[in-house]
Amino acid sequence: MKMVYMDHASATPVRREVVEAMLPYFGERFANPSVVYNLGSEVKKVMEEQREKVAQLVEAKPGEIIFTSSGAEANNLAIKGVAFAHRKKGNHIIISSIEHHSVLNAARFFERLNYEVTFLSVDEYGLVDPLRIRDAIRSETILVSIMHGNNEIGTIQPIPEIAAICKEKGVLFHTDAVATVGNIPVNVNELGVDLLTLSGISVGAPKGTGALYFRGGLRLMPLIQGGIQESGRRGGTENVLGIIGLGKAAELIRKELPERMQHLLKLRNGLLAGVRQNIPNVTFTGHPEKRLPGHASFCFEAIEGEALIFLLSREGIYVNTGSACASKALKTSPVLVAIGVPAEIAQGSVVFTLDTSNTKDEVNYVVEKLPPVVARLRAMSPLWKEKAVA
Amino acid sequence: MKMVYMDHASATPVRREVVEAMLPYFGERFANPSVVYNLGSEVKKVMEEQREKVAQLVEAKPGEIIFTSSGAEANNLAIKGVAFAHRKKGNHIIISSIEHHSVLNAARFFERLNYEVTFLSVDEYGLVDPLRIRDAIRSETILVSIMHGNNEIGTIQPIPEIAAICKEKGVLFHTDAVATVGNIPVNVNELGVDLLTLSGISVGAPKGTGALYFRGGLRLMPLIQGGIQESGRRGGTENVLGIIGLGKAAELIRKELPERMQHLLKLRNGLLAGVRQNIPNVTFTGHPEKRLPGHASFCFEAIEGEALIFLLSREGIYVNTGSACASKALKTSPVLVAIGVPAEIAQGSVVFTLDTSNTKDEVNYVVEKLPPVVARLRAMSPLWKEKAVA
Repeated sequence: MKMVYMDHASATPVRREVVEAMLPYFGERFANPSVVYNLGSEVKKVMEEQREKVAQLVEAKPGEIIFTSSGAEANNLAIKGVAFAHRKKGNHIIISSIEHHSVLNAARFFERLNYEVTFLSVDEYGLVDPLRIRDAIRSETILVSIMHGNNEIGTIQPIPEIAAICKEKGVLFHTDAVATVGNIPVNVNELGVDLLTLSGISVGAPKGTGALYFRGGLRLMPLIQGGIQESGRRGGTENVLGIIGLGKAAELIRKELPERMQHLLKLRNGLLAGVRQNIPNVTFTGHPEKRLPGHASFCFEAIEGEALIFLLSREGIYVNTGSACASKALKTSPVLVAIGVPAEIAQGSVVFTLDTSNTKDEVNYVVEKLPPVVARLRAMSPLWKEKAVA
Repeated sequence: MKMVYMDHASATPVRREVVEAMLPYFGERFANPSVVYNLGSEVKKVMEEQREKVAQLVEAKPGEIIFTSSGAEANNLAIKGVAFAHRKKGNHIIISSIEHHSVLNAARFFERLNYEVTFLSVDEYGLVDPLRIRDAIRSETILVSIMHGNNEIGTIQPIPEIAAICKEKGVLFHTDAVATVGNIPVNVNELGVDLLTLSGISVGAPKGTGALYFRGGLRLMPLIQGGIQESGRRGGTENVLGIIGLGKAAELIRKELPERMQHLLKLRNGLLAGVRQNIPNVTFTGHPEKRLPGHASFCFEAIEGEALIFLLSREGIYVNTGSACASKALKTSPVLVAIGVPAEIAQGSVVFTLDTSNTKDEVNYVVEKLPPVVARLRAMSPLWKEKAVA
């Protein structure tokens, strides 16, 4: 059976070149990078080369990169690292209401520790208004965290504008760039951020990898306390294999980015046009232009996203209902609620995230298979029947 | 040149069988275990099989295992997870003064948050006296954390006795078993612990893997907040590759443990006898009997451990000065200070950690090469000359 995989935000096969770069570090080059003898210093050297590659991907300095075990860990390190290290300055944190669970829940954790958290609402496209951030900042504010690109609706936030306000007000600014790094150019200096999260999954590295950029000199409490690893900012023996994979993937995707963006944009627009033309009663979520190039998100009225995912998978098409982390926990996506999608429409949420490996033929296959599946589910839907009667 | 690697506590080559188990999860089976479609649920199923294997290694239930990115993360999760979740009950934590940096520094972190930490001293073998724990427990005590086996001096603590006291007093008890799991039988029920840390490195799995056992039902605040992964106890997409590696390694080492222990003990005793016979002025650190089978630790008087490591590496012999995490940060090991080794002797610390792959020939090679290297360094040592004069 044909397999069309379009859930690359959840997971991506690790590229052959990345696997090949990693293989020697299972056996031949197995030493601990912290030991004093040559076997270790050789591994340490290669590990530092990967740090440079990851830094280059976001135009940072190598010393500003901390390797983590996921984007979620990097988000937790950013929020908790700043909140604990700067608590003498203040106890107020500002985030948007559509942040990833790892930011939302890390912030909520501080509510229990007598911090205050402001959850900023967003408009119908999921955009945060920078002026509302200016209004929300108080003398006790220590951190603003607004994601760069949203994983569920694809909207890209006005990060430079928000960063300028934070800088003016002397407040640290973190952005979760898991969805953008590897999909659009990300430059920490142009964005003006103090901290930025990236994930290995988004760049074709193995799961269990990620990194936090933090502006040089910034005080940060480690999340994982321990020894001297990561300049004392993250304890525990480094995941050398994962770091090699992340570095190699970062190197490759950086070179390919312009071509990749063009390819993704073309496919995505083909998919959007095909859906628009062949399926009625569809809500396109997120911003029409300010969005990730390979991201298409819809809500099909009167059907359940999960049922749609299941039937599509039987046609060999793999997509998601929203975020993989939340997919089993929540029936209605908080992101869709936040942008004002009515609950009964939000149920029919489907997200396509494309990769360079996807083709025009695959998009055509989806555009061919999707309408009858939607029609079939609607034929069984009481909501759809009610609608037809009304 | 001959290569004799005896620093297995720092790192171990990943076994062929483990690599082979992992390989399909780079490409063919790449899906995110949290997604709803079959590609993901297949990965999820295999991941849960690994949880069962890791649970079996310590005689726990699969639902009591949380996968982490290292032993250090598991230690942080144990300390912080309990301290934050149980702060209404109290704010007092008891640890020993020879805990791993990840426990020491996680505990110190709470001193800044108005918790109190008692650092218990140890005897000349590094043993904690259970009666001193009984005395230290107060009504505000919420957690005791005492490591099972010490990575630097090999001493194994009387965990069941300590656990019995904690249970009687109604205080949670965590043990860092990174050094013991894979080297001696570890049974969470026989030990009587509430939480136990293990690391992938100790069992032949890749770096970047670990797990925390927590007794079912125990309240624990996540360290990495996020989505539904690990039953809501650790956010972030799971390191599927690492988990497969950890599970396979756990399965293998569990079967081989009785044979492994015998082999390690024999080699270790051969090494000890050889050193004792051929080198004067050596302090053997740690407990002579209550110790890890493959662990030998010495302090060679009047020399620098680092210089010895360097010269040994030129003979193809790889050993450590202490803990890899601390090796570059500290000149004198806090563990050796805690057991009363004078600073000038503690400088000459060398730790051998053996593996099944080591042989009797390798031990003979070390026993042959070590004495002249020690003699050479002592010939250059002002301390040694002073000693000769006196």
